[in-house]
Amino acid sequence: MNHSVNLIYNDNLMSPLDASKLIIQKTTTPNEKLANDKLVFGKTFTDHMLEIEWTAENGWGTPTISPYHKLTLDPSTIVLHYAFELFEGMKAYRDTDNNIRTFRGDKNMIRMNKSADRICLPTFEGEQLQQLIDKLLVLDESFVPKGQGYSLYLRPTLIGTSESLGVSVPDRALLFVIASPVGPYYGTGFKPVSLEATDYAVRAWPGGVGDKKLGANYAPCVKPQLEAAKRGYQQNLWLFGDEGYITEVGTMNVFFVFKTEDGKNELVTAPLDGTILEGVTRDSVLELAKDKLPSDQWIISERKFTIKDVAEKAAKGELIEAFGAGTAAVVSPIKSIGWKDQEINVPLAAGDSGELTKQIAEWIRQIQYGEVEYKNWSRVAK
Amino acid sequence: MNHSVNLIYNDNLMSPLDASKLIIQKTTTPNEKLANDKLVFGKTFTDHMLEIEWTAENGWGTPTISPYHKLTLDPSTIVLHYAFELFEGMKAYRDTDNNIRTFRGDKNMIRMNKSADRICLPTFEGEQLQQLIDKLLVLDESFVPKGQGYSLYLRPTLIGTSESLGVSVPDRALLFVIASPVGPYYGTGFKPVSLEATDYAVRAWPGGVGDKKLGANYAPCVKPQLEAAKRGYQQNLWLFGDEGYITEVGTMNVFFVFKTEDGKNELVTAPLDGTILEGVTRDSVLELAKDKLPSDQWIISERKFTIKDVAEKAAKGELIEAFGAGTAAVVSPIKSIGWKDQEINVPLAAGDSGELTKQIAEWIRQIQYGEVEYKNWSRVAK
Repeated sequence: MNHSVNLIYNDNLMSPLDASKLIIQKTTTPNEKLANDKLVFGKTFTDHMLEIEWTAENGWGTPTISPYHKLTLDPSTIVLHYAFELFEGMKAYRDTDNNIRTFRGDKNMIRMNKSADRICLPTFEGEQLQQLIDKLLVLDESFVPKGQGYSLYLRPTLIGTSESLGVSVPDRALLFVIASPVGPYYGTGFKPVSLEATDYAVRAWPGGVGDKKLGANYAPCVKPQLEAAKRGYQQNLWLFGDEGYITEVGTMNVFFVFKTEDGKNELVTAPLDGTILEGVTRDSVLELAKDKLPSDQWIISERKFTIKDVAEKAAKGELIEAFGAGTAAVVSPIKSIGWKDQEINVPLAAGDSGELTKQIAEWIRQIQYGEVEYKNWSRVAK
Repeated sequence: MNHSVNLIYNDNLMSPLDASKLIIQKTTTPNEKLANDKLVFGKTFTDHMLEIEWTAENGWGTPTISPYHKLTLDPSTIVLHYAFELFEGMKAYRDTDNNIRTFRGDKNMIRMNKSADRICLPTFEGEQLQQLIDKLLVLDESFVPKGQGYSLYLRPTLIGTSESLGVSVPDRALLFVIASPVGPYYGTGFKPVSLEATDYAVRAWPGGVGDKKLGANYAPCVKPQLEAAKRGYQQNLWLFGDEGYITEVGTMNVFFVFKTEDGKNELVTAPLDGTILEGVTRDSVLELAKDKLPSDQWIISERKFTIKDVAEKAAKGELIEAFGAGTAAVVSPIKSIGWKDQEINVPLAAGDSGELTKQIAEWIRQIQYGEVEYKNWSRVAK
């Protein structure tokens, strides 16, 4: 039943997404650039946006970069009724040579196509969209902030734009990309966060869509987040099943470091079983850890584990550290987890985080800001 | 954790939704009315639409009925990214005295508030919105078609309109109502449909939001629907769990009639356990059946049952009939269910449906079109 993304794409005999057809229409009224300390995540945007329309009849239309502008939608548009919508989160960084770099955008393109396929929105060749995003970055490069922790957040979004209240396969869609200069996601910066382990509400389930970056996965999480906030927690740690399996945080994947019985360290995160977002940062953490941590001292695991396991490890002094990993916050140290009546305290050996958390954040930062070349993970926009 | 809707509403000290503040701005370019046989579900709309804006700061704004028009949304609007959206489906009917009647709209208002509360969108007093809808109906009454099976489909919709990519509680929203003249939902009319019992994809989960009328529940169902269509089925019959519990159809709740061991008939539907939409038609079917069917011959059950139960009943000749129930299709007879390698054939004793299906459809129709007064189920728009 699951076709590969490539097959779907090749099945499509209509116009493919073609970056070479790009039309650029520059703004005549440039926006003011805000100082770094005035940046709020996702609140202000660059001068331009990228748009590509798609119809079932003709395929992908002409890509256009034009001044940032409102969208005009009929009130019957399916994105407003049936959540035909998905997005990606990517960041662009300014390196010391003033190049603008994106981080593993190819992974975002693959995931975006998987999300699109799951809700019958059109797929496309990822490299074409990456090239178009590069053009947007070159045009709006002055909005990419300087400084550690600062970047230009990119939001590729795909919405169904058919105008009909019948629930059926979209015959029109709009892919757009907007860009917002941002600082650290949490107002607290690289400060540890507290999570509430949540089991009364369930984010995702087997056979559902929790592993796709669909809008549908987000609105339902806000009320539990509000409830957690009332009790002093910044985010929910989503548990699954009677066993209390640890899944993810909703805006981040989650990693723990345990001391094992034979004195090694285990870096562990939940496996991609269909209930967990396939995070690009998650993948990067795993790959860097496998590559850089000494294998005689470290075990890197994608396996199921429960909140009870974490509580037991903590009680025995074998919980070393924990952190969230996601594009918005990159790496976010965890200081405590509220679970039923107990508070699981997570050590912060490096001050505001664990030692590995700090190390991994730095490894990723160096690649993102182009200080270190690593595989093909960093791409210079041209 | 669950507040009642009323409490939430009363907690709100800002402006409540107030129908008496309505401003009407009439169109100067009325739309052409289509002949009944040209009507397509949700494709054409009446001359006007209702809108009410909400802000966290000021509460509900001035309700406005104005010419049907496009919405203007910033590309960062949260409805486009995080599925802050919910809707209701209601119908208005023309009676023989040319009154325009709605059917149990109070139930829709209660459900709409529950949906809103679940994703932190604002709640409101249902009677106020019903009064506003009445005004829209009076103004656009010429669009309400004449004839059995024809009606004006009403789509109250509530979307989050905050302009920010942060995932948090909406501080702006828009409630709008559009109206589409419609005929029978399925092109086939009151003709029996075939369902594919689906277990590889899962519509809803305990602790999820499958019992709310959120946009989030709909887009993920279209791919399985497309897969079912390829195999010749019109809709999915959503199963749950290894047991194969029958839940609902996604656009309809589902009812079966079984012959019991002591020779009675059992009308059975799945219970409201949090995975099933609280259908207004479902509730009406249950209430009418309890009221009108002789209790010495009929058992009316809301209980868990499985696709295996249905297959076994069918094999023994004890499956009498089955139908879907929902606002769009009202009552929709089922003729067959594909399950793994077998085809469960459902008897159609009354030709295009079972006897009870036909009877219940007629009971509901008589109330909807004002031929029979029943409790307070039909409301004349004034």
